[in-house]
Amino acid sequence: MTFLNMAFTFLDLKSHLSTIHDLNKVSWVLNWDQRTMMPAKGAPVRAEQLATLQRVAHEKFTADETGRMLEDLRAYEASQPYDSDEASLIRVARQDYDKARRVPSDLVAEMRRATSLASTAWAEARKKSDFALFLPHLEKVVELKHRYIECFDKTDTPYDVLLDDYEPGMKTAEVKAVFDELKQDLVPLIAAIANSKREIDTACLRGHFPADQQRAFCIKVIEHFGFNADSWRLDPTVHPFASNSCTSDIRLTTRYHEDDFATGLFGSMHECGHGLYENGVSPALERTPLCRGTSLGIHESQSRLWENLVGRSRPFWKFFYPQLQAAFPAQFGNVAAETFYAAINKVQPSLIRVEADEATYNLHIILRFELEQEIIAGQIALKDVPEAWNARMKAYLGVDVPNDAQGVLQDIHWSSGLFGYFPTYSLGNIVSCQIWEKVQAALPNLSEQFERGEFMPLREWLRDHMHCHGRKFTPPELLHRLVGGPINVKPYVQYLQGKYGELYGL
Amino acid sequence: MTFLNMAFTFLDLKSHLSTIHDLNKVSWVLNWDQRTMMPAKGAPVRAEQLATLQRVAHEKFTADETGRMLEDLRAYEASQPYDSDEASLIRVARQDYDKARRVPSDLVAEMRRATSLASTAWAEARKKSDFALFLPHLEKVVELKHRYIECFDKTDTPYDVLLDDYEPGMKTAEVKAVFDELKQDLVPLIAAIANSKREIDTACLRGHFPADQQRAFCIKVIEHFGFNADSWRLDPTVHPFASNSCTSDIRLTTRYHEDDFATGLFGSMHECGHGLYENGVSPALERTPLCRGTSLGIHESQSRLWENLVGRSRPFWKFFYPQLQAAFPAQFGNVAAETFYAAINKVQPSLIRVEADEATYNLHIILRFELEQEIIAGQIALKDVPEAWNARMKAYLGVDVPNDAQGVLQDIHWSSGLFGYFPTYSLGNIVSCQIWEKVQAALPNLSEQFERGEFMPLREWLRDHMHCHGRKFTPPELLHRLVGGPINVKPYVQYLQGKYGELYGL
Repeated sequence: MTFLNMAFTFLDLKSHLSTIHDLNKVSWVLNWDQRTMMPAKGAPVRAEQLATLQRVAHEKFTADETGRMLEDLRAYEASQPYDSDEASLIRVARQDYDKARRVPSDLVAEMRRATSLASTAWAEARKKSDFALFLPHLEKVVELKHRYIECFDKTDTPYDVLLDDYEPGMKTAEVKAVFDELKQDLVPLIAAIANSKREIDTACLRGHFPADQQRAFCIKVIEHFGFNADSWRLDPTVHPFASNSCTSDIRLTTRYHEDDFATGLFGSMHECGHGLYENGVSPALERTPLCRGTSLGIHESQSRLWENLVGRSRPFWKFFYPQLQAAFPAQFGNVAAETFYAAINKVQPSLIRVEADEATYNLHIILRFELEQEIIAGQIALKDVPEAWNARMKAYLGVDVPNDAQGVLQDIHWSSGLFGYFPTYSLGNIVSCQIWEKVQAALPNLSEQFERGEFMPLREWLRDHMHCHGRKFTPPELLHRLVGGPINVKPYVQYLQGKYGELYGL
Repeated sequence: MTFLNMAFTFLDLKSHLSTIHDLNKVSWVLNWDQRTMMPAKGAPVRAEQLATLQRVAHEKFTADETGRMLEDLRAYEASQPYDSDEASLIRVARQDYDKARRVPSDLVAEMRRATSLASTAWAEARKKSDFALFLPHLEKVVELKHRYIECFDKTDTPYDVLLDDYEPGMKTAEVKAVFDELKQDLVPLIAAIANSKREIDTACLRGHFPADQQRAFCIKVIEHFGFNADSWRLDPTVHPFASNSCTSDIRLTTRYHEDDFATGLFGSMHECGHGLYENGVSPALERTPLCRGTSLGIHESQSRLWENLVGRSRPFWKFFYPQLQAAFPAQFGNVAAETFYAAINKVQPSLIRVEADEATYNLHIILRFELEQEIIAGQIALKDVPEAWNARMKAYLGVDVPNDAQGVLQDIHWSSGLFGYFPTYSLGNIVSCQIWEKVQAALPNLSEQFERGEFMPLREWLRDHMHCHGRKFTPPELLHRLVGGPINVKPYVQYLQGKYGELYGL
């Protein structure tokens, strides 16, 4: 094949992949629509529409034609720099293709059916706090996960296959080492906080906060991060998420509790962090499989960075607290800035992951990561999972689980077949602090900028060094480019120790 | 082929068509999203996504496989009753397939490109009121329309081919006969109204009507027609339309002028009429090509019926006017019901079609229908169309066109390639009154029901006799089932003469 022929084949591949990418992105928009706009009775047909889009996209992607083009382009790929748009597109598409071809369509369809039934059973089981209702579905899902794992070459541990879907290139052993280290430092820190004399009062966060006023304040904050009506939306929903149609059409969601100020605002900042990542991908990658964040963990590093490292910091509130007081004078007019800062940073072991503070959150994750490995390895009978859950909640967080609804049944993930997903939440926390160290070195006046309400230098640094690359690099490659090394728990532990040491006088 | 084999082939066909239908319906949802929710900068990628969906659906539908199944099912079709779901699906799919196969993909793509450019040029030309900017694009679109016409067997007149896309089975000669008769009766009626002594004052419709209060009243009204939040939405937009994702997910749009009460409410009722048609299609036809209204004209008969025959009637306002007065006491508290009724029914020749009253509206349509035929027949040079437009506006409506923006450039249709579309608006008006005669005979207490706020008997009659069939029957077939004969202008003329004779004391 001549170079010119290869260049034409590359254009054919790109066009073929853009068709598939369009179909996938359309699913994202329909998902967003379903969770924010769709009338309830639209659900059954919407499920069919989403299944059709997924099936058509999957057929087109796994067609022999895709494989032929990828083969024909090996020399072309080698002729281009590794980090070029062209070589990256071929490389990433080939990895995706190899993975997609290994899983039979029947298994994909069976998983979709099983998880659909399992999700319904889970909702019912959670409502009745009855794990037995969910158990047969969990068994089916785990069985299908085993069949999925068998589609791939043997790995060090079967869990590696599942983890790779959400955190490509990351091994179970690595995550385990990182989490063990994290646990070692976190458990004593949380114990020290529990024994601290300082009592933090969060009463100021409770009151009456009309949803429209919350929304106005959320918009004001995230406009400073880069949100603008030309390219973004913020809508209410039940379980918040970020989605997008393309890099210039970003859809954030949040939920407002009218009796609790924190959920809506911190949720908005969190989803805005996800949105900034997608918004920052190079427009040259638009409508290609490179056009999204490189992994869930790296994505979570961005949402956590904006929610916590920025949004729960003193410099941020030096700028915004007077505005918050002006927006809710009856609530915050007489509350000192320091009282407010302490309230939004209180550490309090609790039952529910999504309501956990920055420190204890990770123990919820480690618990799930450990259980998932044992489940996949067959080291624990599924009927015994609730007991194991409750024992570990007591050991790690010191809390007693009163019922399964507030315990093993609290999260939807397992019913949806998302084994291997949970660890990415804590990986995101860890990575956010590695990046934060670099940002602080590159932008030494960051705190002063925040105090003046200037967040664009941070946003632009992240875009230029990270967001623009999309999926070009694997998470380890990207991390190496950003921080010069692999994942490392130290900066995160130091951040937590520093922040809570000061706050709790440890 | 055995009967059992055919039954299996039928299931295959149905599944194949449901995939295509899903892709088409997804485009509807994306279009709705674009016009109500999408941030502006999402537009370029959205255009690509819509083109991809259309291309993939078209490829799948025009595949040889579709034709093979339709051929294999001829005996199966003949074995089923004409009006059965099965025979109807095969029959309608075969008609669609024959049509779609005749048009080369290249021509479809060229039309999409040309109309995209023409629409942009039209917007610019309208802004500057400069027809010359639009002329070369109109020439291109008309040339492509001729190439489109050449794809089909010779018809009595080339315009028949275009009309058939929007009003299947209707011939130009039929429409011409109907419109000639209508014109004959309308022109003297409008002249008599113009010479009437009665001056109708519409001042009560002007004032300040906050959009959210308008919305609340619109919702209250259309809830009486069948709107409910389980299956419907109503959102603001610039150019209102009705869309849907399926029969149980209906999306209406409207626009609120805060200085003018009528636009938002009558627009809402109009779109609700469209929505009721789609909502009323039998659930057994869901996810098939039979699952929508049978033509634009028949669709328009429903929107006009609810907007005008119901929404501008005395019995309707007997129920709703006290509620309107309560909703806007400063505005309507001291306005007599009869003054309000006259104001919403005032006849006033004007320049702009979409703002025209019930009577003069049709002359706007007849003008376009005549010009379109002459354009397609090559009887008028395109550069001379503005002059012809202005002369006819003077002759039919007695108004002077001050510039092309308010004349020939007012509508987007031609720039979008929609030749043959305009007549369906007036066909809808005419058909609505044929149906109305039947409804009144079937439901003799209709007026009393309206006066009590009861609109469900009307809605249910329309659903049971008409909406449920979807596209099973052609417009002439459906009309025959409903009113026992072909399209007939008499009931409409009698309605207008009766209504305005009484109102204007003619």
